[in-house]
Amino acid sequence: MPARELVVLGTSSAVPTRTRNHSGHVLRWDGEGLLVDPGEGTQRQMLLAGVPGSAVDVIALTHEHGDHVLGLPGVLQRRAVDGLTTPVPLVFPAPAAPLVEHLVGASAHAGALAVPCSVAADGPVTGPDGAPLRVGGAVLHAVALDHRVPACAYRLVEPDGRRMLPERLAARGVAGPDVGRLLAEGTLRTVDGEVRLEDVSAPRPGQVAAVVEDTRWCDGALRAAEGADLLLCEATFADAEEALAGTYGHLTARQAGRLAREAGARRLVLTHYSSRYPSTDGLLAQAREEHDDVVAAADLERHAVPPRR
Amino acid sequence: MPARELVVLGTSSAVPTRTRNHSGHVLRWDGEGLLVDPGEGTQRQMLLAGVPGSAVDVIALTHEHGDHVLGLPGVLQRRAVDGLTTPVPLVFPAPAAPLVEHLVGASAHAGALAVPCSVAADGPVTGPDGAPLRVGGAVLHAVALDHRVPACAYRLVEPDGRRMLPERLAARGVAGPDVGRLLAEGTLRTVDGEVRLEDVSAPRPGQVAAVVEDTRWCDGALRAAEGADLLLCEATFADAEEALAGTYGHLTARQAGRLAREAGARRLVLTHYSSRYPSTDGLLAQAREEHDDVVAAADLERHAVPPRR
Repeated sequence: MPARELVVLGTSSAVPTRTRNHSGHVLRWDGEGLLVDPGEGTQRQMLLAGVPGSAVDVIALTHEHGDHVLGLPGVLQRRAVDGLTTPVPLVFPAPAAPLVEHLVGASAHAGALAVPCSVAADGPVTGPDGAPLRVGGAVLHAVALDHRVPACAYRLVEPDGRRMLPERLAARGVAGPDVGRLLAEGTLRTVDGEVRLEDVSAPRPGQVAAVVEDTRWCDGALRAAEGADLLLCEATFADAEEALAGTYGHLTARQAGRLAREAGARRLVLTHYSSRYPSTDGLLAQAREEHDDVVAAADLERHAVPPRR
Repeated sequence: MPARELVVLGTSSAVPTRTRNHSGHVLRWDGEGLLVDPGEGTQRQMLLAGVPGSAVDVIALTHEHGDHVLGLPGVLQRRAVDGLTTPVPLVFPAPAAPLVEHLVGASAHAGALAVPCSVAADGPVTGPDGAPLRVGGAVLHAVALDHRVPACAYRLVEPDGRRMLPERLAARGVAGPDVGRLLAEGTLRTVDGEVRLEDVSAPRPGQVAAVVEDTRWCDGALRAAEGADLLLCEATFADAEEALAGTYGHLTARQAGRLAREAGARRLVLTHYSSRYPSTDGLLAQAREEHDDVVAAADLERHAVPPRR
């Protein structure tokens, strides 16, 4: 199982279909998990996808629409049933607070198991302890989108690091535990003198996963998707419904493809399909005319975050 | 399709399994429908079972526990999406009102689509217009149970009627439209004199369907089940967990069988199984040692209300 992957719980939009549940996606990242948009039935989809409650460390809501949030009380209640007592940070756009209060109030157990972390502006999300919220070491960022109600995209951003260059390490005689020491401390004293980290490594930009759910085409979507290794993006409609997409504040599959291309994202994973499309083949084809690396997600699939080249 | 039947949407209890969703049952009665306990995912189970939102005319909650109610906002929201604008009476034990408020508040659309009808005492449930609430002509009754929180059983009670006796009708020369006229008016003037309804018919007690969800063994359960043609009853545990059943305020399958027998119910349909039982065969066998007409419901099944003999 890859250490960084997307688990697809549900790919439908306003209404479920026989094969697609409401929204729900888990980003697994180095042993921790971010659950984005627990739509109704997420508790059971987690069971079907093999994601235990303990694999979720942060929950984020992109916006308050029911198809993205109505599974929240069940997810929290299930944590209580499973004996999980550590409250999870619950991230949401600040204006959704009244609705979140109802959702958390809908289960007698839910209130104690979520720590509200409302998002007021673009940037790293502040966790319950006042520090940036992390998932498996990656920092969670929020970016405002343009939907019919306040909505956010989310990015998991791994801090930039260094990639060791084996031939240079060998030339300087650095090996074994000394490599880790050099990485941690930046310099290393050897019998031949001092070795600096920059001498034997190259910059390695952190990996990024982004989730762009319900939105019209907007600058926020571009900033959210920028340079993402994996971009999960809504693709509610096909070309023929582009006007409708604008009216309802959604993207077409082609726009999702264009977003990936213009934002320099790598793998694009489509989701959030209108129930009017029994097959996603047409949506996938339209997105692929805009971007070369696109897959159409199906419920209960897993998609690895592509490793940095 | 029988005019009076139970549609099983979900047969699990606290947590769903791969094959069983949370609680959810629809009683279809002469063209109208009563949805009891929309657990999470009921909206999708209705789709899978072929029950459109328009087939639900009344929603009743037995109690406030999440596995029985968390699908309510989704069911109401779906009505909005489907363009159903008539609010449905929403029946629940009066102390559950604060939780119901959160459930209805959890969806922006739900509030306008439900008329709260809280139940304060045993007897016919009062509808929004102050009259007893009916489903397809049958009167909805509530009976208090004994669970860890306030809980009700529900009965659909067809008013008593008359069963025509063909040989007596023939002897008095009553046929065709005159039969309906006699039924409606109670007397009929013929060339041979007056015919009274009692002369040519026998009493026909109304058909009854009862739903007994989460409860300990109690008098209320017996009153709720009394003489039911179809009794849907929780059977959370097997004999080996009888003590646990008492602690958690539940019935064993054997107790459900005994309840059917002692209450003079006819067909017993078991539901609400603990997830510890992958198969319901053991539960069914134990209930059948107490009562002769028992079936163990499975998700998406339909069970006709047995016709009066």
